[in-house]
Formats: sequence, C-alpha cells, structure tokens
Amino acid sequence: MSELSKITFVIGGARSGKSSFALNRASELPGKKVYIATAQAFDEEMKERITKHKEERNSDWDTIEESMNLAEVLRTASSTHDVVLIDCLTLWLSNLLLADKDLEKEMQFFISSLITHHASRVFVVSNEVGMGIVPDNELARRFRDISGRLNQQMASVADEVYLVAAGIPVRIKKEDGYAGYYQKN
Amino acid sequence: MSELSKITFVIGGARSGKSSFALNRASELPGKKVYIATAQAFDEEMKERITKHKEERNSDWDTIEESMNLAEVLRTASSTHDVVLIDCLTLWLSNLLLADKDLEKEMQFFISSLITHHASRVFVVSNEVGMGIVPDNELARRFRDISGRLNQQMASVADEVYLVAAGIPVRIKKEDGYAGYYQKN
Amino acid sequence: MSELSKITFVIGGARSGKSSFALNRASELPGKKVYIATAQAFDEEMKERITKHKEERNSDWDTIEESMNLAEVLRTASSTHDVVLIDCLTLWLSNLLLADKDLEKEMQFFISSLITHHASRVFVVSNEVGMGIVPDNELARRFRDISGRLNQQMASVADEVYLVAAGIPVRIKKEDGYAGYYQKN
Repeated sequence: MSELSKITFVIGGARSGKSSFALNRASELPGKKVYIATAQAFDEEMKERITKHKEERNSDWDTIEESMNLAEVLRTASSTHDVVLIDCLTLWLSNLLLADKDLEKEMQFFISSLITHHASRVFVVSNEVGMGIVPDNELARRFRDISGRLNQQMASVADEVYLVAAGIPVRIKKEDGYAGYYQKN
Repeated sequence: MSELSKITFVIGGARSGKSSFALNRASELPGKKVYIATAQAFDEEMKERITKHKEERNSDWDTIEESMNLAEVLRTASSTHDVVLIDCLTLWLSNLLLADKDLEKEMQFFISSLITHHASRVFVVSNEVGMGIVPDNELARRFRDISGRLNQQMASVADEVYLVAAGIPVRIKKEDGYAGYYQKN
Repeated sequence: MSELSKITFVIGGARSGKSSFALNRASELPGKKVYIATAQAFDEEMKERITKHKEERNSDWDTIEESMNLAEVLRTASSTHDVVLIDCLTLWLSNLLLADKDLEKEMQFFISSLITHHASRVFVVSNEVGMGIVPDNELARRFRDISGRLNQQMASVADEVYLVAAGIPVRIKKEDGYAGYYQKN
C-alpha cells in the first residue's frame, strides 16, 4: 500500500478482524490520530467492549464517540488530526435507523464530507451483512439493503478496499478510480 | 477478460452491486441483448424496483420476465440473441421452492440448457446466502443448501466467476475447467 | 501449494464446497489418512449425510467421529496418521456451546494441540458465519462472535488459508507468519 492513498475502506463479517487490521495499519502511520467510535453503550457488555477497545489503542490515539453526526465530526477531526479511523459504518447506520433519521440524506452528507475533507488519511470500517439468508424481519431487510448500498458508495470513493476474512485482509481495490482484480490478472 | 468466454457467473451478497456489474459488462459487448428477469412483482416495492431496473438498461436490451421455466427461456433466447443476462438464480430457486417444484430436476434442466445452448454469451447472476448464521427456519435452511449447491454447479460450468463485494468484482475463476487462485499465485 | 505446508485452513459458507475441496487436496497426499468428523447425528437427515460423506471418501481414509474432545483426538491421530482432516470447527463449537462447555478453554486446548502436535499434515474446515445480518437470538450472536474469533486464531496459526465460494477456492494466506494479498500485489 502506498502512503499516498487517502481513503482506506475495510469491510468484513462479524469478528473478522476488520477493526484490528484497520487499527494496526493506521497505527503505523506518523502523525496525530483520532478514533471515531460510532458504538453506543446500551448495556454493560457494550460498555466493556468499548473500554477494552480504548485500552488497546495506545496513547497516540484520541477518541471521539459519535453515534450520529458522522459527517460533521469527520470534517472537524480531519482538520485537527493526520489519521482518522471511523469504526464502524454499520453501527452508525443502525443508530440512524433506530433514531428514524433520513438515511439517504445522512449517507450523502457523510460521503461528501469524506470526499471534500480528507486532508488527512482516513480509514473507514464496515460490516458485510448481505451474504446470509434473506431476513424475515422487514426492518432487517431494509437495513441490509441500505448497508449494501453504503458499502458500494464507500468502496467507489475509497482509494483502496480490503475484504477481511478470518483476520486475513484481501485487497480488492488498489487505485484511484474503478479497480478490481479482473483488470490486473 | 477474453471476449471468447462463453459463460460468466457473478455472485455476491444482497446489494453488493453484482447485477450492475453483470449488466455493465454485458452492455459493452456487441450484438442483440436480452435480460431475463426472474423476479416476481408480488408487491408495489418490487414493481417499482423492476421498472427502475428496466429503465436503467438502454434500448439495446430486450426484457423477458420468467420466474420458473428458465431452461426453456434460455434455450430460446440464446438462439435469438447474442448476449443473455439472467438475473437472478436465487429468486428463481425461491420461486420454484414456493411453487413446490422438483428443485433437483429444474436445476439439472437449467444447467444442461446452459451447457448445450449457449451459442451466445451468457451472464448469470446469483446470491451468496450461506455466510450468515444457520437459519432457525427449516425452509430457509433447505433453501440455503440448495442455493449453495446450485452456485457450485454454476461455477463449475462457468468460464469465469466473479465474487462481488461492495461493488468491487473479484475474479475467482478465469478459464475453462477447474481454476482457482491457488494455481496461479 | 507447497507440500511443505503443515496446516491448511479452509473456510467458506454453507454448501460452498469447502469440505470437498479440503478432502480432494488431502486425498492427493501420500500416507495414512484420517478424517475427524465433528458432526453429531441428531436426526435421520444428519445420519444420511454422514453416511454419504463416508462413502465419498475412498478406502485410504480412516474415520473418527468426535464431537467434543477435538484437541485430544487430534493429538492421537496426528501420531498415527500422516494426513488429518478435521471437518468442521463450526459444528464442534456448536456442540460445545450446547453442552455448556468452557469455550475459551476448549479453543485454547485445540489451538495449542494444533501447534505442538502436527507432525502430520493437517487440514481444518470451518464455516464463515459472520457475513449475514446480526441475529435476533442472543445465543446465535454469541456463537457468531466465538466462531469468528476461532476462525481468526485458526488462520493465524495456519500456513495457508483458503476462502471457498461457489466451489472455487481462493487462497488468502500463503506462507508462514502473517500474510495477505496486500503484501504481494
């Protein structure tokens, strides 16, 4: 990976190692770093997980907890920090959906904030949620659709995309513009 | 990708961009094109989606809506058109299952129609549905098993196979016969 | 693939062809072979499946059915056989969970048995279960988390890792130590 890349998008399943991979890659870079956590601590389990994650990051990292206004926080954070890591889009979408926000509008805000304000190096983590059986639940189906579309938009503006499975990162996009293995091999 | 390839199989999760990828690739090819849609418009949402998809294809494309008799339609279509795109196998299987058809027999009909009658260039789109947790529902488990087996059969007769994630196509099979990354890298 | 590899880890969705791929690869190797089946035959369907699988393996293969004590069985088997195939980790985890075992401890036993006793060539098959929508069911969520973590641990100690989709194996790790496509391309 070239250090010149600006936006790295990391997708993977639950417990695929996607966040650790993004964190490790980001930690190797020089400069001021900020971790934007979209998780909301609804229960004890979640609180513990958030605290544990915070301890795993070394003192190089500032932490911002923001469950909704991701576009704005990204805008600010990328002017004060060199490296921004957003973890993760799926929880953010889920927060918006539960709060009955206009998802299309929020997604557009976020993507345009990402395109126009990434002076710094940005890592974005998201879940792949569309490779299981169609959910019975209508809300789950809607969420799955929107997640998939957001992941597509993210991948199209990202300079590089990794799909992580069992902790192994597989780079599936490498350069500016449209890219895929089929052009290289 | 060589223009000589005859069957291209495209799999991916929900909203992975698999249909758009197949459509874009197919649209680049010369000749008369036909889009075989297996979706049934049970409700307004589905009707809108089908109409929207139809508008996205340009006037080069004819459209056939066929939810069940895919083998027969493919046979006819490949004699009248140069490029055939089937979208998608998963909905077709789901239609057959709901109509209580003999799935094994229908799958064999389809695969043999595909092998023997593809004078034209054929693209087939399908869903990956087996990478989530085991469904509670017995019918869903059965559907998942059959889908997986059909995807395997499709991939084994296809000249090239793409796995699409977040809109990014990853070619996982390249040539006639058995192929996989492990032989090349 | 080099014959020198010691541990091969194969992951994939339901009916992805992961077991067949592992079995085919393992069958090509010389020496005494043992298949360790973790499936429990709770019902007729499962019994038939197990019998069918047994018939598919040729007479080169011994079979051990072990639903729980995988670490111990692996230890013994790898001293009496040249090639060991474990199919699959996901069912094993599921058995442990249903029997209310200490999953963390069992996982550690297994991984350390794998690292210290693989004089023979070992193949391990597992399911990817984390790429669907978050399950409603708390136990399913817990299982998904643990499966993902076990898959990560397996991949990190494996010499090579394959992700299988639609019967196509994609090698995502190739050598000792940490590896991924991003270092090679």
